[in-house]
Amino acid sequence: MNWPHKDLLDVSQLSREDVDVVMRTAASFREINARPVKKVPTLKGKSVVLFFAEPSTRTKTSFDIAGKRLSADTFGLAKSGSSLQKGETLKDTVLTLQAMNPDAIVMRHSSSGAADFVARRVSCAVINAGDGWHAHPTQALLDLFTLREVWGDDLVGKTVTILGDVAHSRVARSNIRLLTMLGVTVRLCAPRTLLPKDARALGAKVFHELEPALDSADAVMCLRLQLERQEAGLLPDLREYARRFCLTKARLKNAAPDVKVLHPGPINRGVEIASDLADAGNSLILDQVASGVAVRMAILYLHITRKEKGETA
Amino acid sequence: MNWPHKDLLDVSQLSREDVDVVMRTAASFREINARPVKKVPTLKGKSVVLFFAEPSTRTKTSFDIAGKRLSADTFGLAKSGSSLQKGETLKDTVLTLQAMNPDAIVMRHSSSGAADFVARRVSCAVINAGDGWHAHPTQALLDLFTLREVWGDDLVGKTVTILGDVAHSRVARSNIRLLTMLGVTVRLCAPRTLLPKDARALGAKVFHELEPALDSADAVMCLRLQLERQEAGLLPDLREYARRFCLTKARLKNAAPDVKVLHPGPINRGVEIASDLADAGNSLILDQVASGVAVRMAILYLHITRKEKGETA
Amino acid sequence: MNWPHKDLLDVSQLSREDVDVVMRTAASFREINARPVKKVPTLKGKSVVLFFAEPSTRTKTSFDIAGKRLSADTFGLAKSGSSLQKGETLKDTVLTLQAMNPDAIVMRHSSSGAADFVARRVSCAVINAGDGWHAHPTQALLDLFTLREVWGDDLVGKTVTILGDVAHSRVARSNIRLLTMLGVTVRLCAPRTLLPKDARALGAKVFHELEPALDSADAVMCLRLQLERQEAGLLPDLREYARRFCLTKARLKNAAPDVKVLHPGPINRGVEIASDLADAGNSLILDQVASGVAVRMAILYLHITRKEKGETA
Repeated sequence: MNWPHKDLLDVSQLSREDVDVVMRTAASFREINARPVKKVPTLKGKSVVLFFAEPSTRTKTSFDIAGKRLSADTFGLAKSGSSLQKGETLKDTVLTLQAMNPDAIVMRHSSSGAADFVARRVSCAVINAGDGWHAHPTQALLDLFTLREVWGDDLVGKTVTILGDVAHSRVARSNIRLLTMLGVTVRLCAPRTLLPKDARALGAKVFHELEPALDSADAVMCLRLQLERQEAGLLPDLREYARRFCLTKARLKNAAPDVKVLHPGPINRGVEIASDLADAGNSLILDQVASGVAVRMAILYLHITRKEKGETA
Repeated sequence: MNWPHKDLLDVSQLSREDVDVVMRTAASFREINARPVKKVPTLKGKSVVLFFAEPSTRTKTSFDIAGKRLSADTFGLAKSGSSLQKGETLKDTVLTLQAMNPDAIVMRHSSSGAADFVARRVSCAVINAGDGWHAHPTQALLDLFTLREVWGDDLVGKTVTILGDVAHSRVARSNIRLLTMLGVTVRLCAPRTLLPKDARALGAKVFHELEPALDSADAVMCLRLQLERQEAGLLPDLREYARRFCLTKARLKNAAPDVKVLHPGPINRGVEIASDLADAGNSLILDQVASGVAVRMAILYLHITRKEKGETA
Repeated sequence: MNWPHKDLLDVSQLSREDVDVVMRTAASFREINARPVKKVPTLKGKSVVLFFAEPSTRTKTSFDIAGKRLSADTFGLAKSGSSLQKGETLKDTVLTLQAMNPDAIVMRHSSSGAADFVARRVSCAVINAGDGWHAHPTQALLDLFTLREVWGDDLVGKTVTILGDVAHSRVARSNIRLLTMLGVTVRLCAPRTLLPKDARALGAKVFHELEPALDSADAVMCLRLQLERQEAGLLPDLREYARRFCLTKARLKNAAPDVKVLHPGPINRGVEIASDLADAGNSLILDQVASGVAVRMAILYLHITRKEKGETA
């Protein structure tokens, strides 16, 4: 394997070939998770630091499981209980981690660009697990993996509607970049206050009403209302938001016949998506979680075991 | 091994034969903990999620050690730092965990019935590590294991006095159920405000004074005053409580000659039990902790490796 | 190996021969951290509890990595989420841990003497990872390891200046004891309010001005201003402190030509040390972190695998 990237900062750094390598590698690891013995010795003796400066259940646990199923040792580092409490700068925290010689640092941080900042300063692989509103590349890759499992490898001509708080969503940004690269038509649908100013520049079509946004859509990705992240006053009234934008079975009637529904979680049931739809047969929400472990195994594997290409990289 | 239960929710689901299987299995694992190499490969490649939505030292660490000594990978998930902070429902948290394909979820939760709620929704084993005031089955099983180590396998005719805050104690409830099934005479002793309204219906004799409750008792199980759990005003004055109910050597003078003393911990020394008695030779408090690791190894082993019996189960 | 000590409480218990054994063992483990497979089976089946009742990034993670690279299982126990929240005494917490039969307890605690208190009560090894203002022996040992890597094994005749908040620094106390034992001339430099009353009794020369303290010094160990630990009013004005005592390249002009700079971290850049100096070629700050993993591997190894010497110990 000649994986050309030291770090995974966002999907924009990946070529179509790179994406295919991730997808194929994840598919091969996918099987391990269903075996009675869910473990292979691939990364035995490797150290993976999970540095999460924002709370997270699913992403941190997903990386932890991914690492351990490859036999790596994982080391969790939360913001509370860490030197960040003592006022240490991010720079010094990561230089310290680096000096302990890990093979990869998986990091989540509230500041856009934090992963890039760290990646420039350490020699080991840095995997961005979400930086501010900027990027969440493994989420986009696992969403893609999930869609390819139902649609096959070729997504050209498909239409995916991303619904909700696009303005504050790193998930949306990474998905827009990845899906448009693969020939998917991406639509964004949100009230004006929840769309970034550069929405059209992202290469997506913009809608402020649900009905036209869902018309003939092959999949809808709901976004989480990042309640804890928005300043007071920027958040729409939740009831009003749900009345206009909450995804329901009825509202999907003009979507493609076998429309798929995704959500990165955690779900606010009845706000972003109706509870019965979240649990329905065309919901891929739990498939996304399962894909997450496989995709993160692939990402850890590719970055930790890659051979340096030297000048040609 | 044909362990018939997918989950361990409470001891009431166990037959006497089931209890014997747990005890024998725990006894065989007990030895591992005393070896120089305290590890067997039995559960290699299995994943155990430790989902504790209430604080815990001993129970969580005990399960963590139990899992790792069987070579399982364990994944801690605390309430803080989890999606529960973000308002995710319990249902969605466990469906997410389930999608990562663990072999068992060990869970503690402040709501009675939470483990049952989860067990109905996931296909993996669910081990109740304490749900509200309802049940704490591994505590009752480890208490039993501890008593059998000193008394032998047959407990018929023994008298055990459970002393303290029965009303708010899941430990008491699970112990009453298990001990009465095995032919032990169970006495409850507490001030009226710390006894449940259905105390007599539990199959135990009820006392409001210490002296008759301890008369000829073979063992006394002190309960913890759950200070952090009672609403203001429901808690008795601690000095008054200790004056009347704190277990001391002097107060045990009419108990059986070799009376044993237990406490699930953490102890409030001088409130539930006198400090010198807690450290005395007839105190089994630390034996309980040691038993806990062995019993939890047995519980994890039985639930994770069981063969489905199909229709006959 | 006949390591004579059950516990590591402070460096004062170590003979010069003991120190040499630690250094040689750490050197042999140092290599493991640079290998592609950073893991040896030396402590497979051993259990190490990391009991940190004060926040810590580097020390806890360093011990965690050290344990896992030797194939031990590690069990983290933080103050939050532990029974200490429920008011359990330190004594009961450690007796409970002991009953789970770990091979070593690594502990940090805000009270001087806490590690000694615990060591007297448990049969397993207790490694002091910092107790109040008293001692931090692995920090002193890793500082020594770091200096020996650049200076060779013999430190007689070297001069080391310890600069900053000596009064509240367990790092300083352990370093003074260790370095003076090895024939190093130790100078202390701090404003009067940050020097302990017994400063001269520690065997070090005391300075209140930076210039003479640094004159011909071979190394300077900056200490952290323990902002979170001093009562209000005891802390000097940070700007005034930095103006007089912040270590800079210019202020090192009269030190030895190849003077080395150390800091235990986390750094307050611009307060204890200028940012450019912390990152300069003569800064050993990150070497200290790397040494820390190797030294802690040695300490865990020596204490867990030692053969009892019986009466001669």
